[in-house]
Formats: sequence, structure tokens, C-alpha cells
Amino acid sequence: LNNAALLANSRLHRDGHAFAQLVRELGAKGYTPATSSNFSFRLDRDCIAITVSGRDKSALTEQDLMVIDLDGRAINSARRSSAETALHLQIYRQLNAGCVLHTHSLKQTLASRLFARQGGLRLQGYELLKAFPGVSTHDLDLLLPIVPNSQHMPDIEQAIAPYLGREGVVPAYLIENHGLYVWGRDMAEAKRAFEAIEFLLDCELELLKFQSH
Amino acid sequence: LNNAALLANSRLHRDGHAFAQLVRELGAKGYTPATSSNFSFRLDRDCIAITVSGRDKSALTEQDLMVIDLDGRAINSARRSSAETALHLQIYRQLNAGCVLHTHSLKQTLASRLFARQGGLRLQGYELLKAFPGVSTHDLDLLLPIVPNSQHMPDIEQAIAPYLGREGVVPAYLIENHGLYVWGRDMAEAKRAFEAIEFLLDCELELLKFQSH
Amino acid sequence: LNNAALLANSRLHRDGHAFAQLVRELGAKGYTPATSSNFSFRLDRDCIAITVSGRDKSALTEQDLMVIDLDGRAINSARRSSAETALHLQIYRQLNAGCVLHTHSLKQTLASRLFARQGGLRLQGYELLKAFPGVSTHDLDLLLPIVPNSQHMPDIEQAIAPYLGREGVVPAYLIENHGLYVWGRDMAEAKRAFEAIEFLLDCELELLKFQSH
Amino acid sequence: LNNAALLANSRLHRDGHAFAQLVRELGAKGYTPATSSNFSFRLDRDCIAITVSGRDKSALTEQDLMVIDLDGRAINSARRSSAETALHLQIYRQLNAGCVLHTHSLKQTLASRLFARQGGLRLQGYELLKAFPGVSTHDLDLLLPIVPNSQHMPDIEQAIAPYLGREGVVPAYLIENHGLYVWGRDMAEAKRAFEAIEFLLDCELELLKFQSH
Repeated sequence: LNNAALLANSRLHRDGHAFAQLVRELGAKGYTPATSSNFSFRLDRDCIAITVSGRDKSALTEQDLMVIDLDGRAINSARRSSAETALHLQIYRQLNAGCVLHTHSLKQTLASRLFARQGGLRLQGYELLKAFPGVSTHDLDLLLPIVPNSQHMPDIEQAIAPYLGREGVVPAYLIENHGLYVWGRDMAEAKRAFEAIEFLLDCELELLKFQSH
Repeated sequence: LNNAALLANSRLHRDGHAFAQLVRELGAKGYTPATSSNFSFRLDRDCIAITVSGRDKSALTEQDLMVIDLDGRAINSARRSSAETALHLQIYRQLNAGCVLHTHSLKQTLASRLFARQGGLRLQGYELLKAFPGVSTHDLDLLLPIVPNSQHMPDIEQAIAPYLGREGVVPAYLIENHGLYVWGRDMAEAKRAFEAIEFLLDCELELLKFQSH
Repeated sequence: LNNAALLANSRLHRDGHAFAQLVRELGAKGYTPATSSNFSFRLDRDCIAITVSGRDKSALTEQDLMVIDLDGRAINSARRSSAETALHLQIYRQLNAGCVLHTHSLKQTLASRLFARQGGLRLQGYELLKAFPGVSTHDLDLLLPIVPNSQHMPDIEQAIAPYLGREGVVPAYLIENHGLYVWGRDMAEAKRAFEAIEFLLDCELELLKFQSH
Repeated sequence: LNNAALLANSRLHRDGHAFAQLVRELGAKGYTPATSSNFSFRLDRDCIAITVSGRDKSALTEQDLMVIDLDGRAINSARRSSAETALHLQIYRQLNAGCVLHTHSLKQTLASRLFARQGGLRLQGYELLKAFPGVSTHDLDLLLPIVPNSQHMPDIEQAIAPYLGREGVVPAYLIENHGLYVWGRDMAEAKRAFEAIEFLLDCELELLKFQSH
């Protein structure tokens, strides 16, 4: 384990800077209001770096990251991560993910509320669908699942579990009245999927406004 | 008093820089159009630092701050603060506040007008409610009061007094056709509450647009 | 005239930098799309500095300014200003203006089109009305005139002349499908009036969207 | 060919920096979500510089450009450009274009979908029409064509061919559910046309929202 911890620290040192910059960018764009949201990336098979709870994300630095194992135990730190750490870990355990982004944008909150009744949002016919891994045509539709909010994390884990990694489902989900989880094999893929989801939610919400015309 | 004044000056020196930066950020985001808005923080039990009237907030510096006592008298300065200083002081006298932000954003102006008839806005079910001090679940509703505008400050003070510090009320209020007052025990808490209110107003206004669909 | 020209040049040297910075800011915020818009300030009784035609305003420098007299003749320059220079000069000749801003924002274009039939827009009850010179209460209404567009400048001059400097009219007007002219005794006052108008147009357009609810 | 290649490289060296900066600006404004979009400019009669596929456009550098000939063959490079390179080349072959911009903004996607049924969008009466080459009055209407999306590029080429260079048509077209192609004789003209189209789409979409009022 000592060797593993050394390696994890070395990856944290190597990639923490770029990761903190990505988080600051998302913060500066207004996707993390009021110190909400949290972010993580995989250091190795057993270790995750995750943002410490309650920080202003638009000013995040590498010092605001901590290392945990896949059971959520802090490694070499007395700090605590968010209660929602469990939702990050579920994705790392169940899928081959290298980076998980959790944000609370306006569009995410609105879409999670307006489309909750139908259990998800069908994204159809957009060229930008090709931003998701393995998609090579605009001519299909993909599901973005929406699950109810809860302060009891296992409720959310249980609700989303059947959708994780399923064919025809984007690598992301919404929690009602709350926000988005999105992931990728690495930071670049997670960021790309985030931008695609945010853009497509904006499209769907605007189209709803035009529907009565 | 001399010793107190020295201490107040020393806190102004220590925190004025971070405070001016916060004000500039709010200005740069368009929350203080046309040199409107004013901002303050508590220096000690008896003294407040407050922005001088009429400055462009996106370019504010520590030199644009002045010190007043809780009766609004300028200390060591011939400059004058806004007529609305009285509203800042009411909050410092009645509550354990360390920082008060007053802004005029588009969303604040629109919400203050559209929801005025019902005397306030009920914020319900949002994960982001947890940004307010003492709130640990999304599953409740909180009141954001709205009071009529007036050029006679005691009118506004009287209208809002019954709501200040009351259970189930957010640490903020709207003045109709005018803007927002929001506060916290310190700058970070006031900023966090500001961001939460601005985000939730945006949500409520957008949801109103979708209501007819 | 030589002495006057020297003095004008000295003021251009002194204030051109701050003026170019103001123009770049307005450009960066999207108020001058596609190299549109033009800007001027008064150097002395007889001379105006004005932006050269066709420049990208978000990258404007002092070198993109030229000096003209109140009849629009270029002084010490072979460059040409916009055809709309005539509209700037009308304001300088008829009023005690020190700075004129002409922009083409989205809100200005939309409002100019949607409210054209009624000949102007009544701005009523907003705290931000106090941003206009001489206004000390929110409890009144002010007129923002709207005139038809034309490629023949005297048409526009004739249409707006009766409104310039009139009581109860803001220091600004809209041209239909085109944009805004706004002015002040100096740059700060013109900028303040610009921000107030842009904000109030945004309010009025958004309120229109809520009207059917 | 060697001499031509040297000259092309020298132009790439000279203008690549300004071009990469233009692309980064468009990326930073959100017009290229999720590594979408691609951009090119003409080096000489036979050679084009074009962005390499899959890069984050808000961080593009000159190293992310490659040189191709008018048949799309890479010159001195093993990298590959986007499948949509064919659409860039059609414009360079058929018209006297010096720069082609392809973006995926929200407004472009929405307009391409909402106005697709009528085969294009008529832009009428806007002062900003004068931003297009050869237009000297607001008092006319111009067509922005919209063609169906396809993963087979010749379909798109065939659909748009009749419109390229035609009188009364703007130097741009939309692909349904996809994005915009826009061009000019040089970078400045292409950028100017881009800004005008983006602005006018925003106007038309907003006006649609007001239509029922």
C-alpha cells in the first residue's frame, strides 16, 4: 500500500494542477453556484482525488483536493469530502471512469425539474451527439436519465444503478432539483461530455419555449 | 474611542482588499449597473466599512471605502455614504451580521416586480437551499420577502423589520423595482447567500416562462 | 486655430486612452457586433474626437480616433469617419454634451423594433431611473424616443430634433432596427446613462415575455 | 511544388498566430462546444491551413493547424483533418474565399431547426445587413440558406451548391441540427460576417418569442 500511496501522490502532483484549472473554469462559468458541486479523478485502481467540501470552485487550487480510496476513506488527511462522495465512488466502481464532474448549472436544474416526470430526456438528431464516446452519427437518440433527489445517498445510487453503462444512455445523469453527474475515461473526455450535455440541455429548454409558436 | 478607531482601521487595512475584490467581481458580472448598489462589512462592534456613493463598482478600490458608526456618522472622513446606509445599519444592529451586499441585478429587479403582489417568493425543494446557514436538506421551503420601494428609508426599515432573523426566512430581501439586500456572518457567507439567491431567482423566473407549456 | 488645434491634440492625448478603453469594454460585451457602432467625445468648443469607420471596437486603440470640427471636417487627417457622424454632431451642437456613444446591442435592436409603433418606450417606477442626471426619485416615468431608420442622415436628425434636451426625456434615443444613441456631459455620465438604458431595455423586454402569464 | 510549399509555410507562419487567436476567441465565447467545429484559411491558390480534428478550440495553437491541398490531401503531415474538410474545400474551389469558419452555437442550432422547413431564413430591414460585403442599405432582404444534415458530405455539398455566390444570399449557410458555415475574402471579413449572422439569428429567435404577444 505504501508504494501505491506514493504512486497516487505522484499522479496527484502531476495532474492536480490541470484538474484544478478545469474546476476553476467550470466555476467561473457559473456551473457551481454558492460553493456547491464537487469533482474527482482517478489516481490509480484504488485511489481517487476529490475536492474538499464547501470550497468556492472558481478559486480552487490543488490544496483543495484530498485522496480517498474506493470505500471513501481519507488517505493521509483529516479533512472530509462531501456526503455525495458515494455517488462518485459508485461510478468509479461500476464503470471504467477516470474523471467525474458534478455541477449545479441553471439549465441542469431547470431540465431536471421540467423533464423529471418522464424519467429522463431523449436527445435526438443533434450533430453534437457525436461528442459522446462511440457515437459516429447524428441520426439516433440517446437517453439522459433523471432520478429523484434525496439526502440519503443510497436512494440515488439505487435509482441510477440500472442505467450506468447501459447501451443508448449518455455517460451522465440528472438529479431532480439538484444537478448533473457526468464522466469520462479521462479529464478531456469528461469535459467534452459535460459541454455536450450542457449545450443539449440549453437547446431542449429553448425549443420548449418555441413549442407553442 | 481612539483605540477602537485604530483597531477598526487595522481591520479595514487587513480585509479591505478582499472586500474591494468581491465588489469588483459582482460589478463585473453586471449586478451593479450604472454606479448603483452599495456594500459594507463590519469592522468591530461599533464600526462599519461601506462603499462611498456613486462609484463604478467594477473598478472599486479600498480608497472607495469609508468608515461609519452604527448611527451612520462618518469617522475621520468628509465623504458621504449612500442614503441607503440606513438599511445596512438596520441589519447590523438587529442581527449578528458581518457583511451586507446590496445589488441591482436584472433577475432581482424582475422577480421583485413579478412576485411583489404576493409579498415574497417561496423557494422550495432546491438542493441549493442548503447554501443557507443552518439548512441541511432540500426538502423544505424558505421565504424571500419583498417590500415596496420608497425614497424614505424608514418606510423600508419598518416594512422589513418583522422578517429579519425570523425562522424560515432567508438572510435576504428584495425591494420592489429596486434590488436585493443579502447578508452573512462574514464575507464568504454573504457571497454564498448572494449566489444562491441569484441562482434561485433565475430558476423561478425561467420556470414561470415554461408554466404555460 | 493652430492654438486650438494644439489644445485639442493635448486633450486627445490626455483622454484618448481612457476613451479607447471604454470603447473596448463596450465591444467586449457584444454591444458593437460586426465592426458596427461609433463613439466620440468633445475635445473643446469646436472639436470632436471620433472613431474611424469600420474598426473592430473590441480592439480599438487611440490610433483609431480622428479629430473633426462641428461641421464634420477632418482636422489633420485624410481618414474618414462614419456617415453617421452627422448624428453625433447634432447632439454636440444642440446640447451641452461631452461624450456620445452609439451602439447596436441585441436588446436595443429588439426594443427599437417591438416598441417602434408607439414612437418610444416609457420607463416607469425603476430605482435605476436615478442614474439619469437630475433624477432623484424612482417615482416618475421618462420617455426613450424611437425614430425610423434611414440611410439619409437628415431624416433621422429631423425626426429626433424635437426630443433633444426636452424635459421628461432620457439623454438617449433608439433608431428602429438599428441601435442606440446616448450621451452625457462627460464619459462617466455617458457610460452611466448607457448602462441604465441597456438594463432598463432588458427589463422591459423580459417583462413582455411574462405578460401573458 | 516545393517552392509553393515553402511559400505556403511562410504564410502559415505569418498568419497562423492571428488565426489561432481568432479561433480561441470563438471557442471562449461558447461557439465550439465539446471540441466541435473547424476553421480554415487560404495560404495560396492551391493550399489551405485547417484545424486538426478533435481539439478544444478555446485552447487552439498554431501547432493544431495542418496544410492540405484543394483535394484535401495532407501536405507534409500524417495528421488528419475533419471529415467536413470537404465542405471547406467546396467553398474555396467555387468562390473567391480566403477564410472559412464552421461553428456550432446554440442560436445556430436552434435557428437551423426552427426555420428548416422553409429552407432558409430571410433577414430583412436590419442596419446590420450592411456588415455583408457589397451591401450599403438596411432596406433589403437577404437569404440565409438551410440544408439538411448528413454524415455523407456530398449530400450537403450538392444541397448547398446552387446557393453559393448567388445574388441576394449571405456568404453563409446553416446545416440543420448542426451549425454554421460562413466565409469572407480574408479573416477580418469572415469574422465580420460571422458576428453579423450570429447577431441576426439571435434577433430572429428572440422576435419569435415575442410573436404571440
